[in-house]
Amino acid sequence: MKTIRIGMIGLGTVGGGTAAMLEKNRGFINKTANANIVMDKILVRDITKDRPGVSSDLLELLTDNPDDIFLNDDIDIIVEVMGGTEMALTYVKRALNLKKHIVTANKDMMAVHANDLFKLAEKNKTVLLYEASVCAAIPIVEVLKKSLAGNKIHRIMGILNGTTNYILTKMDSEGVEYSEALQDAINKGYAERNPDSDVMGYDPGRKLAILAAIAYNMRVEYDDVYIEGITKIKAEDISYASELGYRIKLIADAKYIDNGVKVHVNPVFMPDTHPLARVDGVYNAIYIESDMAGKIMLYGRGAGADATASAVIGDIIAIAKDICENSIANNGYTLFNERKIIGHKDAVSQFYLRMSVKDSPGVLSKIAGVLGGHNVSIYSVVQEKAHDELAEIVIITHSVVEENMQNSLQEIINLDIVNEIGSVIRVEDEE
Amino acid sequence: MKTIRIGMIGLGTVGGGTAAMLEKNRGFINKTANANIVMDKILVRDITKDRPGVSSDLLELLTDNPDDIFLNDDIDIIVEVMGGTEMALTYVKRALNLKKHIVTANKDMMAVHANDLFKLAEKNKTVLLYEASVCAAIPIVEVLKKSLAGNKIHRIMGILNGTTNYILTKMDSEGVEYSEALQDAINKGYAERNPDSDVMGYDPGRKLAILAAIAYNMRVEYDDVYIEGITKIKAEDISYASELGYRIKLIADAKYIDNGVKVHVNPVFMPDTHPLARVDGVYNAIYIESDMAGKIMLYGRGAGADATASAVIGDIIAIAKDICENSIANNGYTLFNERKIIGHKDAVSQFYLRMSVKDSPGVLSKIAGVLGGHNVSIYSVVQEKAHDELAEIVIITHSVVEENMQNSLQEIINLDIVNEIGSVIRVEDEE
Repeated sequence: MKTIRIGMIGLGTVGGGTAAMLEKNRGFINKTANANIVMDKILVRDITKDRPGVSSDLLELLTDNPDDIFLNDDIDIIVEVMGGTEMALTYVKRALNLKKHIVTANKDMMAVHANDLFKLAEKNKTVLLYEASVCAAIPIVEVLKKSLAGNKIHRIMGILNGTTNYILTKMDSEGVEYSEALQDAINKGYAERNPDSDVMGYDPGRKLAILAAIAYNMRVEYDDVYIEGITKIKAEDISYASELGYRIKLIADAKYIDNGVKVHVNPVFMPDTHPLARVDGVYNAIYIESDMAGKIMLYGRGAGADATASAVIGDIIAIAKDICENSIANNGYTLFNERKIIGHKDAVSQFYLRMSVKDSPGVLSKIAGVLGGHNVSIYSVVQEKAHDELAEIVIITHSVVEENMQNSLQEIINLDIVNEIGSVIRVEDEE
Repeated sequence: MKTIRIGMIGLGTVGGGTAAMLEKNRGFINKTANANIVMDKILVRDITKDRPGVSSDLLELLTDNPDDIFLNDDIDIIVEVMGGTEMALTYVKRALNLKKHIVTANKDMMAVHANDLFKLAEKNKTVLLYEASVCAAIPIVEVLKKSLAGNKIHRIMGILNGTTNYILTKMDSEGVEYSEALQDAINKGYAERNPDSDVMGYDPGRKLAILAAIAYNMRVEYDDVYIEGITKIKAEDISYASELGYRIKLIADAKYIDNGVKVHVNPVFMPDTHPLARVDGVYNAIYIESDMAGKIMLYGRGAGADATASAVIGDIIAIAKDICENSIANNGYTLFNERKIIGHKDAVSQFYLRMSVKDSPGVLSKIAGVLGGHNVSIYSVVQEKAHDELAEIVIITHSVVEENMQNSLQEIINLDIVNEIGSVIRVEDEE
């Protein structure tokens, strides 16, 4: 049995989890890989830092000298779990040029630099695997790359962020406002003290870029993704959604349309009957529509040390097995399709609008008039007396071009009968 | 670009779907595989048979002479989609011995002969892929073999049969009896005129054997699976389930316990809150519990020409790519764990009992006494006046050893106060 040596970059949550999993399940991992997989060196910034909970065996592997990993000919696979973009990218490029195989959990890097890295791996005939970069243990990267490889993918919709799904689920089940649900997520360790990366939608945006590139064999990058977070969602919106047969979810959506790919992350009214509407708490799920496989959903924990380590180890085993079988196949450059991204203004969708208006006759007709003038037709409307001299109007539109919607809102907000536009949220069609 | 030639055995629903998909998506399939994949010959029993809907291009490839495929050195991959056991097994063994790679959709064969075939593939350094043999387009085989390879699998529970799930869903949503729901499934083409393979649980039993072997790296075969079908489920049971917070599903369950693996297919009261409880209609789903990845669910269409073809084509692309990259890795014999199957009498579970009894004082106490005498303790009980002098008792037990449950039922049925034991159905614990 051949020995395969790993050089790991980073020993944070994911790195610690990976090392621990390799140790814990060593017996059958080695049998499955038909290789003796050994952690050889771990590159860290500060070798003297106190690392509670890290075993003394692991501490002996630490180094702060990159050459100990890169110039070590015994090391076959570099596992990059340091995170961040610049330094990680430098390391990964160096490793690929030195013909090391790469396993990375780095979504920030992959969402921006996948194209360059794929080319570099192709050139050097090395393998670059990145299952852990999207939704941890949910095996979406491999499923898109391989199992569904013969399918034309029409659409990928996902709940790709557990923090925001926890917050929305809590707002729904307990009727609390965003700020209270966020505080609870912070207290439970599901959200960071600075939660922007999650609640503003940046994190699921990165994951979506990675998935869309695989699914559409096209260069799709983080900057291509139109992103709205969940910070403006009110308890009131959640309650209206429920009344109308929907649940509000932060949906990452990569849809193939005739003239290109639309990549959006934003809150969506999902019909109760849609499988994604039922994904609650910190769970993630990805729903794929394709021409032959039909509708498929993958569901699981999208974050956490153990779940992320599971994906890293799966990739390590795959490479180790191939090295031992002498059957390493380089990735192949798969982003061969012409790059066509649809701007969000051209996207088409139904909308939910909630606005506070003067409670006087003719108000609804004026608003409907403005909408109609912009080709926005109304699917359903609810008007309720709010308080004082105000009423609340909730409108769901038919499918409209986003730009028309935005233009009509510009006009509506200037009407003297309109006090405030409370919320504008996209609505997913019934199946 | 190298040309990879396919010899296909069988041109039924799945074979036709596979050929059509290869034609329809040829452009990007070839780009992804980096190979020119060509259907070369199709072996059928009767070359003169009328085949409506099959293109003339395909008809030209038909042969009834096996040597046209097996002895053709240009053919790299044999796709076995004829189904059945004996003849298919003979063909697949011959092909492996001739160093052809195999893609099969044959669950009957894999559920019984996987062990022999894995050894034969290993010996001949050929690849044997069988994603399509379990739940069509749901990529469960690859996910278990690769993505979760580093995990200790605790349990796999699945709704592995769309026909029975359609019937149970219809009984639930419309309150109809089994026979009416079955007739509807036959009318819609979801069930065959002889529906035994589905409704008796044989089909999901085969799929479970295949999955358990992968998950536990152990020889598990169809005969090891304890199987009960859905034919005895009454509308009444479905209605009690709903009242008590459950939904009845036909669950295939492979659970690792200290002393071995329990492999069961039977109807189960699933708690409403369990993701599998919400899988409706013809959809399938597989729920996997493992040490690091946690809980993962895969959901999709588990049958049909297109969905099955999707899996076949995924496997073909994988092999074609590896041939072209000169990176064929033989399967490796993975059933290395000692074979330990737990008999169903030793299995432990909660039970739902529905029985009709004489409506007289002391009846419940007598029944509870018998149960208690066999170490079966009661979790909850409902007693309702039925009609005439009969009452209906519904009991949910705590977790008990199956043999104790069966022994107590033997005794209960002989009590003169008991008119009939209506149903005995396993109950899944709340999470």
